[in-house]
Amino acid sequence: MLIPVFVAIYFHESVALSLFEAFGFTCISSLLILLYSKRNVKSELTLKDSFVVVVFTWVFISLFGTLPFILTQSIPNFVNALFETVSGFTTTGSSILNDIEALPKSVLFWRAETHWLGGMGILVLVVAVLPFIKKNGINLMVMEGAFLSVDKIKPKLIDVARRFWGIYIALTAIETVLLKIFGMNWYDALCHSFATIATGGFSTKNTSLINFSPAIQYIVIIFMFLSGMNFALHFLLLNGRYRKVFKNEELRWYFGLTIGISLMIAVFAIGVFNNDFELSFRHSLFQVVSIITATGFASADYEIWPNVCVVLVFCSMFIGACVGSTGGGIKIARHIVVYKYVKNMFYRLSNPHAITAVRYNKNALSSTLVTSIMAFVVLYFISFIFGTIVMTATGLDIKSAASGIITTLGGIGPGIGIFGPTENFADVSAFGKVYLSFNMILGRLEIFPMLVLFTKSFYR
Amino acid sequence: MLIPVFVAIYFHESVALSLFEAFGFTCISSLLILLYSKRNVKSELTLKDSFVVVVFTWVFISLFGTLPFILTQSIPNFVNALFETVSGFTTTGSSILNDIEALPKSVLFWRAETHWLGGMGILVLVVAVLPFIKKNGINLMVMEGAFLSVDKIKPKLIDVARRFWGIYIALTAIETVLLKIFGMNWYDALCHSFATIATGGFSTKNTSLINFSPAIQYIVIIFMFLSGMNFALHFLLLNGRYRKVFKNEELRWYFGLTIGISLMIAVFAIGVFNNDFELSFRHSLFQVVSIITATGFASADYEIWPNVCVVLVFCSMFIGACVGSTGGGIKIARHIVVYKYVKNMFYRLSNPHAITAVRYNKNALSSTLVTSIMAFVVLYFISFIFGTIVMTATGLDIKSAASGIITTLGGIGPGIGIFGPTENFADVSAFGKVYLSFNMILGRLEIFPMLVLFTKSFYR
Repeated sequence: MLIPVFVAIYFHESVALSLFEAFGFTCISSLLILLYSKRNVKSELTLKDSFVVVVFTWVFISLFGTLPFILTQSIPNFVNALFETVSGFTTTGSSILNDIEALPKSVLFWRAETHWLGGMGILVLVVAVLPFIKKNGINLMVMEGAFLSVDKIKPKLIDVARRFWGIYIALTAIETVLLKIFGMNWYDALCHSFATIATGGFSTKNTSLINFSPAIQYIVIIFMFLSGMNFALHFLLLNGRYRKVFKNEELRWYFGLTIGISLMIAVFAIGVFNNDFELSFRHSLFQVVSIITATGFASADYEIWPNVCVVLVFCSMFIGACVGSTGGGIKIARHIVVYKYVKNMFYRLSNPHAITAVRYNKNALSSTLVTSIMAFVVLYFISFIFGTIVMTATGLDIKSAASGIITTLGGIGPGIGIFGPTENFADVSAFGKVYLSFNMILGRLEIFPMLVLFTKSFYR
Repeated sequence: MLIPVFVAIYFHESVALSLFEAFGFTCISSLLILLYSKRNVKSELTLKDSFVVVVFTWVFISLFGTLPFILTQSIPNFVNALFETVSGFTTTGSSILNDIEALPKSVLFWRAETHWLGGMGILVLVVAVLPFIKKNGINLMVMEGAFLSVDKIKPKLIDVARRFWGIYIALTAIETVLLKIFGMNWYDALCHSFATIATGGFSTKNTSLINFSPAIQYIVIIFMFLSGMNFALHFLLLNGRYRKVFKNEELRWYFGLTIGISLMIAVFAIGVFNNDFELSFRHSLFQVVSIITATGFASADYEIWPNVCVVLVFCSMFIGACVGSTGGGIKIARHIVVYKYVKNMFYRLSNPHAITAVRYNKNALSSTLVTSIMAFVVLYFISFIFGTIVMTATGLDIKSAASGIITTLGGIGPGIGIFGPTENFADVSAFGKVYLSFNMILGRLEIFPMLVLFTKSFYR
């Protein structure tokens, strides 16, 4: 929170003092909480505690994160500020701002920074907290995807987190430099890199990436794609183990799905782009990568494309990035497992005596793991359907409600209907905004750690 | 096919001869096929054969079933006639007819009869064919739902089919008499009973049940509900085993879901009915029962109700009736299993050392069964998403495409958008109609027996 203060000073913005107040208040509060807990909390964390800690960490950082928006009067309304901050920390990228460019640069810097910090937090969650859950047989393939199937060596969790952070920072730096070289100023380059590598999606421009050059759009496409990859693969790449990387099933599917869906959309949408295939393909690819990685940048308004393109975009929102990344959604590894299990079922229908196991990256998966993953996918759809009902009850039309839910649950950003890539979430009711914020955290924490707090057995 | 001939003679309709031609042609063709197969087919049916037989039975009866529509010039277009016939035999009830009442009564009788025959066919499928699949570990709970968990005694399959048919015929007779008593003529009463008990939905009126009296609407509600029940429960009821029936989990959920969703819709829609709760609840209940049982009759146009009601109606399309009924959809027993499995997962998150099994009607279910059911649900969603993409590619808007797919997949009848309860499927492209017809059979056969024909391993 201190960095935006320096940004304000650098740009001679009057909000510097307000930003410092936000920093000061957060600093003092944190110190008080720290002192209190050092004195009073003695016992080790149980599994149940860890769920409470994870959920409320997200809630508390979001509450304090609203301060720079509120104190600078950039977003005076608390619910709006909360929505924007949760959207930032969960790396969703949905916004309630009608005029982004009207905000001070320092505040927009904080907005981009929430993405970047949130992304770092997710990397810790992925390596340090979610594996806990595995102990209870509810293995959601977070660790499998990240390590077991990639590398037999299991390093210490803290080392893994450090390596991931190293890659994360390096990717951000490289993208910033490239964006600067191809025409952005340093400020925009850094803010957009924060939003890209965290798969967030907040832009400093009202029109997102629409008015930037093709070169910049291609750079962003590449870095969105890299950020949606399993970070363990980046680590393997750095160690020169290319074969292992290229044989990774999730990466192959990730690449294939991205190119395949983009080509389909490019063909259907080519009329919109005067039959210019490069243009049609670039924008299709940009939107598809942006949505599959759950970033949420836009280079074009897909809502004016033919219906079938809009449906393909909408369906892509259910895919998700790779496990072990900062991307959201159901995630590709889980889709692979579901696909293989279903394929096995059909195989057994034709070959009654065959005994088959689901194999992922050449390892046979236990049936408990397969069932857990299947249940996750089903629960994801239930959360989607339930949320859609709730949002229509607040008065939204079905298309907007459904896309609003899936885009926040998957941490994507824009939706369709009134939440199109050139629109925003300003007109949703206060209750609707709070529900969508809840939904962002629900999706970000992969549903279980949050929903478990709503079960009776948790309090017994 | 002979009965409509007599109906035509009774009503002095000129189409009698054309209907007799349809009967004659079908009769001779069937005899030829029978003679050919008696001479040439010697071997026993393998499992693979049974899939081919089941799928092509549905295709062939639909092809021959178009004859009365085509030869009488009631539906001269072949694709339209095919759509209408498939919709009849699969007990879906979606129609391409703009003016139903313009058709000869005898042809409309044939239309209602396709429902009734299709419903009978499904009862055979449920008891005789689908259990085959169980042998390969792909148990989809068809038999479980119908018998294992209801009754320990396993009668011979043919006896079960006979009992089911007895109940089926008895329900049809009782409803016909009641509808006659409360004001319908015999012809309408019989046609509507055919459509109710088969959970079909074809009406002889352009406005479905909208213009009938409240008493008739309540009778239809009750018989739709009875038809959506597991027929094994009716059998137990006849044998006075009430406790076993009332303890049946699926029945309790079926009842609870129906009442619960109807109440929610009744509350949200009460403004449409001038705050008359009886009116609002009757129409909500009618629509919800009609959709959950996959019948598809309408007593009101839910498309003019508030958005949240339309979403609730749309979501109800994913529920489905009980196993062992003629209703379609995912079916409630499967939802129960998914719900219980997810609940178990959450329980284990809070109680790491607990060992829990999914219990249904007090029997612990094997993990293979649970995973198969989960995979079925996922596959159902995939079929839905895939179909929606296909239908939007034919030019439909998203809402209509999605509802058109789910209503045909679930065998319901009307959808939302251009397929609302007061509209029809006439304007869909020929390809779209064929795809929707395919979709009806896909859903009717519970996906697996049909999709397996599209897998490579089937032909190896």
